[in-house]
Amino acid sequence: MITTTNNAVNLPEIVVATLRTICGDRYVITDTDILYGYGKDETLDLHFPFDILVKPGTAEEIAGILQLCNEHRIPVTPRGGGSGVTGGALPVERGIVLSLERLNKIVGINTVDHCVTVESGVVTADLCAAVQEAGLCFPVPPSSAAYSFVGGNVAENAGSISSCKYGTTRQYVLNLQVVLPTGEIIWTGANVMKNSTGFNLTQLFTGSEGVLGIITQVVYRLIPAPKHQLSLLAGFEKLEDACAAIVAIKQSGILPAAVELICRNAMEVAAAFLAEPLPLVTDQINAHVLLNLEERSENRLMEAMEEAGAILEKYTGENILTATTTKEKEQLWKLRFNIGAALTSGAKKYRDIDIAVPLSVLYPYIRQVEAICAAHGVTVACFGHALDGNLHTMLQFNAQADAAEEKRVAQVVAEIYDFALANGGVISGEHGIGLLQRPFMSKQFPAAQLALMKDIKTLFDPNGILNPGKVVL
Amino acid sequence: MITTTNNAVNLPEIVVATLRTICGDRYVITDTDILYGYGKDETLDLHFPFDILVKPGTAEEIAGILQLCNEHRIPVTPRGGGSGVTGGALPVERGIVLSLERLNKIVGINTVDHCVTVESGVVTADLCAAVQEAGLCFPVPPSSAAYSFVGGNVAENAGSISSCKYGTTRQYVLNLQVVLPTGEIIWTGANVMKNSTGFNLTQLFTGSEGVLGIITQVVYRLIPAPKHQLSLLAGFEKLEDACAAIVAIKQSGILPAAVELICRNAMEVAAAFLAEPLPLVTDQINAHVLLNLEERSENRLMEAMEEAGAILEKYTGENILTATTTKEKEQLWKLRFNIGAALTSGAKKYRDIDIAVPLSVLYPYIRQVEAICAAHGVTVACFGHALDGNLHTMLQFNAQADAAEEKRVAQVVAEIYDFALANGGVISGEHGIGLLQRPFMSKQFPAAQLALMKDIKTLFDPNGILNPGKVVL
Repeated sequence: MITTTNNAVNLPEIVVATLRTICGDRYVITDTDILYGYGKDETLDLHFPFDILVKPGTAEEIAGILQLCNEHRIPVTPRGGGSGVTGGALPVERGIVLSLERLNKIVGINTVDHCVTVESGVVTADLCAAVQEAGLCFPVPPSSAAYSFVGGNVAENAGSISSCKYGTTRQYVLNLQVVLPTGEIIWTGANVMKNSTGFNLTQLFTGSEGVLGIITQVVYRLIPAPKHQLSLLAGFEKLEDACAAIVAIKQSGILPAAVELICRNAMEVAAAFLAEPLPLVTDQINAHVLLNLEERSENRLMEAMEEAGAILEKYTGENILTATTTKEKEQLWKLRFNIGAALTSGAKKYRDIDIAVPLSVLYPYIRQVEAICAAHGVTVACFGHALDGNLHTMLQFNAQADAAEEKRVAQVVAEIYDFALANGGVISGEHGIGLLQRPFMSKQFPAAQLALMKDIKTLFDPNGILNPGKVVL
Repeated sequence: MITTTNNAVNLPEIVVATLRTICGDRYVITDTDILYGYGKDETLDLHFPFDILVKPGTAEEIAGILQLCNEHRIPVTPRGGGSGVTGGALPVERGIVLSLERLNKIVGINTVDHCVTVESGVVTADLCAAVQEAGLCFPVPPSSAAYSFVGGNVAENAGSISSCKYGTTRQYVLNLQVVLPTGEIIWTGANVMKNSTGFNLTQLFTGSEGVLGIITQVVYRLIPAPKHQLSLLAGFEKLEDACAAIVAIKQSGILPAAVELICRNAMEVAAAFLAEPLPLVTDQINAHVLLNLEERSENRLMEAMEEAGAILEKYTGENILTATTTKEKEQLWKLRFNIGAALTSGAKKYRDIDIAVPLSVLYPYIRQVEAICAAHGVTVACFGHALDGNLHTMLQFNAQADAAEEKRVAQVVAEIYDFALANGGVISGEHGIGLLQRPFMSKQFPAAQLALMKDIKTLFDPNGILNPGKVVL
């Protein structure tokens, strides 16, 4: 656990006074109890103290804050819903935490142009509900949608269980309002479906993890809401067959809205945690494949179901379960959605490795992970977005791990990354780099690419005040 | 016509000698007849003389050339298939034209991971044919696919008739090999479906029009080839009804693989040029809407056809024509594909404005264009990718236009851009900025955005040697 306990305000008085003028007294907070909650996110048990929490209400206030902090060289860490798992919102160099929570308005939904404009502090689930009511759909909410913010989703280029059909956050971002570290407010793109004008600043900011600018508004492209859904669950005796079935589904072109793989190790930990009878959890079954099918007509859904069923049947002799009601779907997905909770029960924590590898490497990757973890005596649970080659590889260890255990886990992480990178993978498919994965950037990127990224960071943020210690600097 | 006639080699002898060492004598060309063809592209009748044509065979040779040119501050204009219509490949500051034509290998097609690696000088149609043979599909070839290069498609973020279903080039680029102006060779991304590691250099280079680096290899994501296609053609008495039908198709979620609108003015010019009976070309019909439907099963295709047909019937009493064979499709699309040729017949030329506007602005945009053109006595043909709000607005004028006519056309262009920009549009949906549209960048972008783009250009290309005079500098 990395932490320091000194929480005295270390900023010049003139800065604090100016912050109060910009945001109003109420939104400049030094109460240490409140600050404590803003010094952590969902990344392990990391906590960092800092000086002042500000909750600006407009892009203009944020511009004022950044100008001030630039002048005084004060670190500013932007914060969304605090759902990040790589430490992107942690104030590692003290200074100011800038919460976007007051930028929570849905500015407008356009039902002809199929787009929505939202402030970046809107909770993802609220966005989804609002556009759903207008007959539209934001199809790639992350699993953290109930509390993550739209701005954080964009900053991390968040993935979704449905990314295999619909892509990641990036594919829906048309335009961003961003406050640059120097205090300029810009729009990066335009609210149109095709745009070949100038460098694509929209995509440069998307996934830049709050180190190039603070996103204050997001324009998302939307799709008409798909009306017909069902889930399928298949159990496999052999992991190899489950992986082969997934490849066959990709080849078919069916395009399910989820293709999740759950390996034996993840099944076991979740089943033990839930301690109840669960569908297709037996001694012989060593892998689950879960599909969501989403189509715009009942006919299409039935056709997709038959095709997907026929493919799965080629690779398993077990029953294939179908769920159409909400209750049935919850039952099929219950094991999958309890893996995380299971891994943290009993005074444990986990390190979530969210590598992405080419689909052709999926099976050898899992076998290699198992071998590495076995060699070091580390418990692992492998599951996730298999069709995209993006697996959560969760290393479980004691919440109060001693140095030896921490070291063992670190060694396993390093070996897993080495294998993934040597086989065409990347160190993050959807969580981003943040603080936690920064040490591995030089494993993935040669010096020339890293230098280019650092130069871009310096260009946007010459004094390095914005979210320092993250991604590349 | 902007041109200069001086075509003497103006480079230091040591530079020419070093180029010969790098590329081999054969690929360093000074023959003025050959050079002439490389001094123009498809942009109006523009031609620019330059000093030397080089045809390197590898990324390493290109790196050597760029290092040399950086040292001697010599402009380098990269060139693909020469199909650009905004002058992106024109050597406006003389120096070297660097043709990518020898980088023409399809490096590999991966049928499990659904991606293809190609050198940037591969002709787009050759790429499409090769992946089709492997059961896969690159779904967004531009209309120039028969001679445009893959690298040029990426550099311009080319659009396609099928972009309304599949997106633009950008959505398929996973990874790029790029030679930076300083001579470094980098890969920008990784060959995986999800990637949240570092700044997205891949998307920064995509659409950067050869001013940030020279693309030498492209990794495209592919999709399983859709197996069932048909075309529909509907004629409308009123343009307004045609536009309303297009909006209704978008609302339905059918997702056709083309939704083209052809306005009366474009119909007339193409019909006169073809001088033969054409489907649904009558006095009463003032707009055509052409759809391509592409689905993975016959059932889906029939369902989509019925739905699309029902929507079109709500907005027109005219017959709706269907084409399933290649020959039938050619007949339905004949008028659409002859508009360009029609506009250049009879010693005429055209300026292609490829604005994109929000779909809600499509109808008022066309009416405004008609009014502007009528006021200035300029012939216009409006047609194109209506569902995306991306219309080709072709202003026809005399190939040997006098100054007054050139001025009139320029005035019309300016007024059209003003209207589009004031209504949320952009100056290019798919052609890019290049040389021709650079003067309009400051209309679309406020100073802060433009400054940021210029700073990015300077960061990548400190001496400004790469494709000077384009996009932003």
